[in-house]
Amino acid sequence: MRQAGRYLPEYRKVRAQAGSFLNLCYNPELASEVTLQPIRRFGLDAAILFSDILVVPDALGQRVSFVEGEGPRLDPLTSAADLARLDKLQVGTKFDLVNETVARTRAALPPEVALIGFCGAPWTVATYMVGGRGSPDQADARLMAYRDPDTFSRLIDLLVETSVQYLSGQISAGADAIQIFDSWAGSLPDNEFDRWVVAPTRHIVREIKARHPNTPIIGFPRAAGEKTTRYVRETGVDGVSCDTAFSLEAMATLAEEEQVVVQGNLDPLLLVAGGEALETRTRQILSTLAGRPFVFNLGHGIVPQTPPENVARLVALIRNQE
Amino acid sequence: MRQAGRYLPEYRKVRAQAGSFLNLCYNPELASEVTLQPIRRFGLDAAILFSDILVVPDALGQRVSFVEGEGPRLDPLTSAADLARLDKLQVGTKFDLVNETVARTRAALPPEVALIGFCGAPWTVATYMVGGRGSPDQADARLMAYRDPDTFSRLIDLLVETSVQYLSGQISAGADAIQIFDSWAGSLPDNEFDRWVVAPTRHIVREIKARHPNTPIIGFPRAAGEKTTRYVRETGVDGVSCDTAFSLEAMATLAEEEQVVVQGNLDPLLLVAGGEALETRTRQILSTLAGRPFVFNLGHGIVPQTPPENVARLVALIRNQE
Repeated sequence: MRQAGRYLPEYRKVRAQAGSFLNLCYNPELASEVTLQPIRRFGLDAAILFSDILVVPDALGQRVSFVEGEGPRLDPLTSAADLARLDKLQVGTKFDLVNETVARTRAALPPEVALIGFCGAPWTVATYMVGGRGSPDQADARLMAYRDPDTFSRLIDLLVETSVQYLSGQISAGADAIQIFDSWAGSLPDNEFDRWVVAPTRHIVREIKARHPNTPIIGFPRAAGEKTTRYVRETGVDGVSCDTAFSLEAMATLAEEEQVVVQGNLDPLLLVAGGEALETRTRQILSTLAGRPFVFNLGHGIVPQTPPENVARLVALIRNQE
Repeated sequence: MRQAGRYLPEYRKVRAQAGSFLNLCYNPELASEVTLQPIRRFGLDAAILFSDILVVPDALGQRVSFVEGEGPRLDPLTSAADLARLDKLQVGTKFDLVNETVARTRAALPPEVALIGFCGAPWTVATYMVGGRGSPDQADARLMAYRDPDTFSRLIDLLVETSVQYLSGQISAGADAIQIFDSWAGSLPDNEFDRWVVAPTRHIVREIKARHPNTPIIGFPRAAGEKTTRYVRETGVDGVSCDTAFSLEAMATLAEEEQVVVQGNLDPLLLVAGGEALETRTRQILSTLAGRPFVFNLGHGIVPQTPPENVARLVALIRNQE
């Protein structure tokens, strides 16, 4: 999950230097620096590349910007004509900058600290490309999938192909594992979930495994609930990130029955609240999942109002239990 | 699920007459009229009371208003002192107006058409009371529950007590079944889900069953995913509404193994899209759940941009399959 961010004073300093948010993503020196900051401060076991899931549409030529405090804005893709204007042949220029960040970061990290690369899953990236911004229900993309499944399917295929290229480049540059973030997997009915979440992810996993058979692939089908088992079985991911609402009992069952490594689900708001609530839940997660293939993690990214000392406290709590 | 609304020209006409949205909820003549409109137009098997889940905080004395196109605004409840200012002794005045709507509607409906009353579940109502508005993650209420569980628990207890009074009044006035809407059940980790969703709902169910043993109670734990089984088992609801993302397979399992009536999960956006997508999914739902205790329903309320003719088409599709 996202480790770097506005909750860290050292991040805010670099962020102010970088100009736009996308400039920071495309500046290997600064992006590598903010990737390393949480590792230096907290001594975590793995670093996650600092980047954004909207690098892919940006690299494809869709206009992407970030409005401070409001999130991303894109020129919405609403038709086959808009889709035809995207250019997959030009993505390399931007992807190379991200790969350079990966290489620099890998070189700077201690060998025992893993570096995780990532991309947004095709469905989730498509919701932003079609809607032009984040939304609570992803209605624009869902409607396009209903009304014009052919165009939507071609968009998803393009994202599969580009994501394979993107992830493969990150692995070649030094990423030890990769994660596929499907933050909006939770809004789809089961038949649409199979078509736009499961099938494209399976395709990406297969292509990455063919090129890099030893690199673990983690999926994050946020809010997939009882459909998570199906996701794990049918995509072939090695690990699954579980969101905050996914029950510990269900995580334990997945780990036991599906031969998958589970990670999650600490509520990022517990890092804001701190105190007894943080401590109690952390112990509960550790005791429920002890002895299973489990990576301690949050259920979603760290939020800006997190006091850094609560993260330090969480790390100490976990280390002391080991 | 919500049947009346801006997608119907006859609703917009009454809405314009009513003044504020809450005025409409508290006007028995007009609220009854808009409850009946979808029944007249589509010949549905059941009507759902036109009202709002925020009637309860309003009746308790919290200031509630509705901003056109933006949703509800409340003076946020952020402390034990704010909680102490609520007055449960005064709720009767407003509840009586809703009960009068129920009585009028029941009298106007054909005897074979059921009337469903409802309330918001304590957790969901509390998220609005604490946050002062809707939010994608209900962070304010979740943080209050972490930081000050005693105050939050007293707020939930007050909502349980008031909701029992509210629902009981609706049943006495003529509601044939009642539904408890927990629209934000999906944001909570399992331990918090048990405490703020399951336990208060179980409490309401027990109290209502003691007073009205023959009135069916439907729960709607939206986005509860794999925790839905636990919700059904532990609350004692007779029926469960399943949201759009809950899989048909899981609905079939619930209906078979938990002796509960299932309803849902047609995507309201399919009523916007219409066409083949609507038809295919409707047939899929009907064929998967045929022969089980199942009520055809949407996974969430009808949205404003729905063409009414798509609703008519859906009704015809279902009737022709029977």
